[in-house]
Amino acid sequence: MSLDGTYDDANIFALILQGKIPSTTLYEDADTLSFLDIMPQTRGHALVISKWSKARNLLEMEDKALAQVMATTKKVATAIRKALNPDGIQIAQFNGAPAGQTIFHLHVHILPRWEGDPKGFAAHGAGGKADPDALEALAQEIRAQF
Amino acid sequence: MSLDGTYDDANIFALILQGKIPSTTLYEDADTLSFLDIMPQTRGHALVISKWSKARNLLEMEDKALAQVMATTKKVATAIRKALNPDGIQIAQFNGAPAGQTIFHLHVHILPRWEGDPKGFAAHGAGGKADPDALEALAQEIRAQF
Repeated sequence: MSLDGTYDDANIFALILQGKIPSTTLYEDADTLSFLDIMPQTRGHALVISKWSKARNLLEMEDKALAQVMATTKKVATAIRKALNPDGIQIAQFNGAPAGQTIFHLHVHILPRWEGDPKGFAAHGAGGKADPDALEALAQEIRAQF
Repeated sequence: MSLDGTYDDANIFALILQGKIPSTTLYEDADTLSFLDIMPQTRGHALVISKWSKARNLLEMEDKALAQVMATTKKVATAIRKALNPDGIQIAQFNGAPAGQTIFHLHVHILPRWEGDPKGFAAHGAGGKADPDALEALAQEIRAQF
């Protein structure tokens, strides 16, 4: 999907927000939700989304929703740092399939990195699905740091 | 440099803000500055920084400065899209050297992508310095879209 198009109310993140499919929550407030990526590219790979914006990508995002998502991104990155002690943290946000976007509800990736890790992004899902119990255990470690 | 440390007033982006070294400006307002990366990883590779925040990284960034930088990132990405018609746009922000950060004044990368482009990030500067006149010509194309 290119940068053009319309918001699909049945995209995976919309379904998570509608409570129709589960996610491993890290943090939630009135406007934003953060949860662990089920196909993590690194330990602690987290996502942050707006609860109310129907922006598929940055070009469509309301400034207010963007500010809320980024403030939560900072909060979650801080908790991940405390819990997992990475050497660095990458923030990434992809717009359009040719840029690596696979779910068309704007989302920010938080990727903790350790010395010697690759710095690039793999094709989404290349590592396969994580074990749900392992994700929940990891989420508990991170949630304890808020 | 890790996630710890102190802000260096002589970092390259601080020197740009102090007017001591030049940059190819795309957009500027009271709080933020956007310019072309002199070692572009793709055509139109742009950066956005805060003019007043001394945050080296996301973990130190004031929410207000972060919101300002992201609002400008959206504006500049929109102008780049109009000027260069990329198929997608990647946004990236690196924290700590092991995550790919080389200049320790928080900055957001805007990377236009075209079908078939690599989606990952090369080591910073792998492509070498761009020709200043070519950068200025490109900046004119983008500035015309604000």
